[in-house]
Amino acid sequence: MKHRPPDPAFEERVRASLARQAFMKTLGARLVSVAPGEVSLELPFDPRLTQQAGFLHAGVVAALADNACGYAALSLMPADAEVLSVEFKVNLMRPAAAPLFRAVGRVVRAGRTLTVCTAEVRAVEGGTETVVALMQATMMAVPGSR
Amino acid sequence: MKHRPPDPAFEERVRASLARQAFMKTLGARLVSVAPGEVSLELPFDPRLTQQAGFLHAGVVAALADNACGYAALSLMPADAEVLSVEFKVNLMRPAAAPLFRAVGRVVRAGRTLTVCTAEVRAVEGGTETVVALMQATMMAVPGSR
Amino acid sequence: MKHRPPDPAFEERVRASLARQAFMKTLGARLVSVAPGEVSLELPFDPRLTQQAGFLHAGVVAALADNACGYAALSLMPADAEVLSVEFKVNLMRPAAAPLFRAVGRVVRAGRTLTVCTAEVRAVEGGTETVVALMQATMMAVPGSR
Amino acid sequence: MKHRPPDPAFEERVRASLARQAFMKTLGARLVSVAPGEVSLELPFDPRLTQQAGFLHAGVVAALADNACGYAALSLMPADAEVLSVEFKVNLMRPAAAPLFRAVGRVVRAGRTLTVCTAEVRAVEGGTETVVALMQATMMAVPGSR
Repeated sequence: MKHRPPDPAFEERVRASLARQAFMKTLGARLVSVAPGEVSLELPFDPRLTQQAGFLHAGVVAALADNACGYAALSLMPADAEVLSVEFKVNLMRPAAAPLFRAVGRVVRAGRTLTVCTAEVRAVEGGTETVVALMQATMMAVPGSR
Repeated sequence: MKHRPPDPAFEERVRASLARQAFMKTLGARLVSVAPGEVSLELPFDPRLTQQAGFLHAGVVAALADNACGYAALSLMPADAEVLSVEFKVNLMRPAAAPLFRAVGRVVRAGRTLTVCTAEVRAVEGGTETVVALMQATMMAVPGSR
Repeated sequence: MKHRPPDPAFEERVRASLARQAFMKTLGARLVSVAPGEVSLELPFDPRLTQQAGFLHAGVVAALADNACGYAALSLMPADAEVLSVEFKVNLMRPAAAPLFRAVGRVVRAGRTLTVCTAEVRAVEGGTETVVALMQATMMAVPGSR
Repeated sequence: MKHRPPDPAFEERVRASLARQAFMKTLGARLVSVAPGEVSLELPFDPRLTQQAGFLHAGVVAALADNACGYAALSLMPADAEVLSVEFKVNLMRPAAAPLFRAVGRVVRAGRTLTVCTAEVRAVEGGTETVVALMQATMMAVPGSR
């Protein structure tokens, strides 16, 4: 799928919005790449983010995937739009145990109001990436604050 | 729905498992109540947990609801079981803006392997609770580590 | 939850729209009741609607729940709106084996564009109703054809 | 992703199970192809399967995608297993209007008990395929009846 972003400054806009997310800083997540309809984020493992067995908490996995989806969607929205998560569904397929996690979000269908995305969260270890979670999400364009 | 917990020490077990979740401490969440098949958690608003518009991040909302579901499920599992999230789906219905959030998770169907739960996340302000998110989740009983 | 329908002729509108659904006739489903934000449908078991083990096919269960959700949503929409399913998620919790099935859909949050609903599908047998499936769905108001 | 089916007679088993589904006959659906972890089904448009606006009913779209997922999962299960749908989530992205629909289901993660799949439903018209719906599903292996 090729997507044409209506706003040529899409990358800047994604970076600026993500920079306003205090929670991404709290997690220690960072933006890796922004392309039209595709965004990658990374999160190093951190013991502060674990569930009872020492794996990355499902909520952290979901947060990362949600952001990858949301910003993939935003990259294809007009310059004056902000993005909200309408809903998402995530399957947690393997224990999230690795030194690094990468979330890749992609737009499947960009509508005027609603955008459907998928995201994979991958455990990265020793040069190998293993998909640990899969998300299917609906994002919504809302008028921005400016 | 009335549920009979196979393990009379269900509350202790839920509390002990939750106490091992570093991420709940990172969020600042606390367990409010445990009943057979129903668990409540609370989370005070914290600017470290926000998305770009200053609301609670959808990933935090999901983490809270996932935990409420997971521990509601665990409360009905045998003494030697641990709980894993298979998948969850959450609708974010209103901006999560309030001084306090409460997640209530309930078991809808407790099977031998899989348990289906729902959770509401409510914004609590001035004596009023408003549902901001709704989750439907599948949890799985796995053999515990002891 | 109390809902106030903006269109006093909501029941008529739900009935008229459902009557235009050829697939409901193909299934043999019928409308049982319409209240503001709540719709019930019934479907007698029919061997033409079964999966490989002789139970009602998951797609039929989903169709019934989707309609209960969709028409619960439509009951709260303005007179000139039509309803479309944006997405739904269904957990199939028990084998759908019974002489009769009842789907009850309820609006959880009615927004201007999007409405969030839940539905239960119950197996009805010998005076007992057992929930066999649970749906959480997002519906959308679109301008009607008139 | 390459998958190795534990049962070399996987195709035969998929065809036999699908042949026992009365509902697929009622819909007029047919199996197009079976590969390890991937199954395609087709359904010609039929006015008996429509919703109120004349499009294919969302329940029919879901039934087709659910079957594509379920049989993709079954193709990787041992010879004595049957498959049940645990849950599925479907986004309906475009009106399902076309002379022919094709559902392609793929296994993302095949576990011992649970298998995660995705499916696309495509509208086929004039040599073009357009994705109209996207499913993410969890399937379960259960002991077969033989």
